[in-house]
Amino acid sequence: MDTAERRAWAYLSRVCEPPNPRLAALVHAEGPVAAAQRIRARDVDGELARATEARHEIDSADADLDVLDRLGGRLLTPGDDEWPHLALASFARPALAERPYGHPPLVLWAVGPSHLADVTARAAALVGTRAASAYGEHVTSEFAAGLVERDVAVISGGAYGIDGAAHRTALACDGETVAVLAAGIDVPYPSGHSALLHRIGRSGLVLTEYPPGMRPSRRQFLARNRLVAALSGATVVLEAGVRSGAANTAAWARALGRQVCAVPGPVTSASSAGCHIMIANHTAWLVTRAAEVVEAVGRIGELAPEPDRPTTSLDDLDDTELTVYEALPRRGARTVGEIAVRAGLPVSEVLGPLAMLDLRGLVSQEDGNWKLVAER
Amino acid sequence: MDTAERRAWAYLSRVCEPPNPRLAALVHAEGPVAAAQRIRARDVDGELARATEARHEIDSADADLDVLDRLGGRLLTPGDDEWPHLALASFARPALAERPYGHPPLVLWAVGPSHLADVTARAAALVGTRAASAYGEHVTSEFAAGLVERDVAVISGGAYGIDGAAHRTALACDGETVAVLAAGIDVPYPSGHSALLHRIGRSGLVLTEYPPGMRPSRRQFLARNRLVAALSGATVVLEAGVRSGAANTAAWARALGRQVCAVPGPVTSASSAGCHIMIANHTAWLVTRAAEVVEAVGRIGELAPEPDRPTTSLDDLDDTELTVYEALPRRGARTVGEIAVRAGLPVSEVLGPLAMLDLRGLVSQEDGNWKLVAER
Repeated sequence: MDTAERRAWAYLSRVCEPPNPRLAALVHAEGPVAAAQRIRARDVDGELARATEARHEIDSADADLDVLDRLGGRLLTPGDDEWPHLALASFARPALAERPYGHPPLVLWAVGPSHLADVTARAAALVGTRAASAYGEHVTSEFAAGLVERDVAVISGGAYGIDGAAHRTALACDGETVAVLAAGIDVPYPSGHSALLHRIGRSGLVLTEYPPGMRPSRRQFLARNRLVAALSGATVVLEAGVRSGAANTAAWARALGRQVCAVPGPVTSASSAGCHIMIANHTAWLVTRAAEVVEAVGRIGELAPEPDRPTTSLDDLDDTELTVYEALPRRGARTVGEIAVRAGLPVSEVLGPLAMLDLRGLVSQEDGNWKLVAER
Repeated sequence: MDTAERRAWAYLSRVCEPPNPRLAALVHAEGPVAAAQRIRARDVDGELARATEARHEIDSADADLDVLDRLGGRLLTPGDDEWPHLALASFARPALAERPYGHPPLVLWAVGPSHLADVTARAAALVGTRAASAYGEHVTSEFAAGLVERDVAVISGGAYGIDGAAHRTALACDGETVAVLAAGIDVPYPSGHSALLHRIGRSGLVLTEYPPGMRPSRRQFLARNRLVAALSGATVVLEAGVRSGAANTAAWARALGRQVCAVPGPVTSASSAGCHIMIANHTAWLVTRAAEVVEAVGRIGELAPEPDRPTTSLDDLDDTELTVYEALPRRGARTVGEIAVRAGLPVSEVLGPLAMLDLRGLVSQEDGNWKLVAER
């Protein structure tokens, strides 16, 4: 990209609130340099004229690109080989055109070594409440670690709580992680996460469609959520209260045709209430392990293994049943009388437990002889 | 019921493994006394002859009825006004006839003051693993208390763990509770629950289709589960491992056209894994509160109230956001500068939190003036 083009993209990134489909169409038709010139010269009409009126004279492109250079970042545009064309193609869905922000970004300001198109080929969003519980942070870490282990990148919004736990664990496991910001690339938000965002920018990717210096706003959070959803093959809500921004990301994922998953939790926890609502409404799939998410983002035929069966069902036995169970021989069979003797119990107290063990598939009986059922 | 009839029912209750649809048809056609006489005289053919061959000479009716009398119990039959005709009518579903045990009981041995037909008009089954976690027992108690508070009877199987917590809480809340046993009415199983079953028999109802002295067996547990499901408008699985008898009760409830509900829990808990599988498979509805179950068993139009919204969403705010929130006036509006002064923060640190509060619907802005949004 030559300097004039780069300056034009930077100018266009600030000249109106992204995403603007009219601006995108103009750039597509005439290229960024001509588009920028026409806007600067007020040679556009109707809504695009109105959308660019307030800022058309502001040209901080050089300063913005200096900020980006100082951060070691790059300005990504649709001509770049790491532009996530495939992920963003979902914005072509007709239903999205009507939706506020239902368009792809014009450019992305990026800092970090990860290759965006490669990352989005195999990525999941882990999102949730900032007021995460210890349970929520633990489960988020389990999911992030499980995804990274299976070469799935972890995408999130860099916020406190679930987002932070997701990014931190991905970093700790040497996995790829992407933070999509609602502010400029040089505006760490929340400020308590500056160090975390810095680390993500050194080993993963920090992305935003807003030019340097932009502070977050409500609209920007909503627009950002759509990118988190779009760049991910599936969105997993780890914890969410009944009013949660994570529900907005989940709604975007659904609208974009991505799989939406939610993790259940204790019904006594307000931080899981939003997840339970989504599962109960059938707007999210219940997932309990990273492997189930990989099934959604993974290559065709990459199925989650069956859940780990408990290595033994003996946890579920009471003392008498365990005593009776242990009175059965490893090989061969015993009569009830023999079992009673070995268990040190009257025969009458052995029958009920044997029936219960039989019901649980742990023992079986033939011709009055009881034996252990081999572990499946 | 005269003595001969009562003796005949007691004899028929023991003469073959219940439920036996051929025996039921014979009794329906000829009455219990004639049916008993024909079986005793081997004047039956085919499968009914075979099913009653081993026990046709055993007549312990007097002794069995003595046991029942000593317990202060009664033998319920289809002629009784408390026979749960409506609940048992679901066994007429064609798909059930093919299913083992897919038939109503012939008689029910009962101890306790509750009126069975009345109870089943408004009842829910609370079932689950015997190896309940503290969470599972707590949530079971919440559900049992919530059901009882709404005049819904709590039906369960009298086992350790979830069943026990359900019965105990229902008793503690002076609610109606029914324990359906897989053994004779005089055989407390598990033995550690003798006192609990005794208390249920004094204020609620203990039921079984097996004659006195019968010990539980695998088949009897499976047959018992169908009665727990049939006598309840909905079955709620509170906790269940991946192999759990509760799944069998849930399957019966589905087959009988009853609503099946499951309560989610921590994904880190093996005791919730069975619930999560049922919810994920869409074979059970996710429920989090008793009120949602009442909707399933209750009168038409008796809808669960909306979930309690947190009285405040402030739980979800970080310290800075809370500071900014509290810097807004109770009435009227303030500019960002005024808010910054009052919060003791630079303006630049107020904007992000304000945007976040706006996103959460807690504050709103007009012409640069910010105000609190009234609680909905």
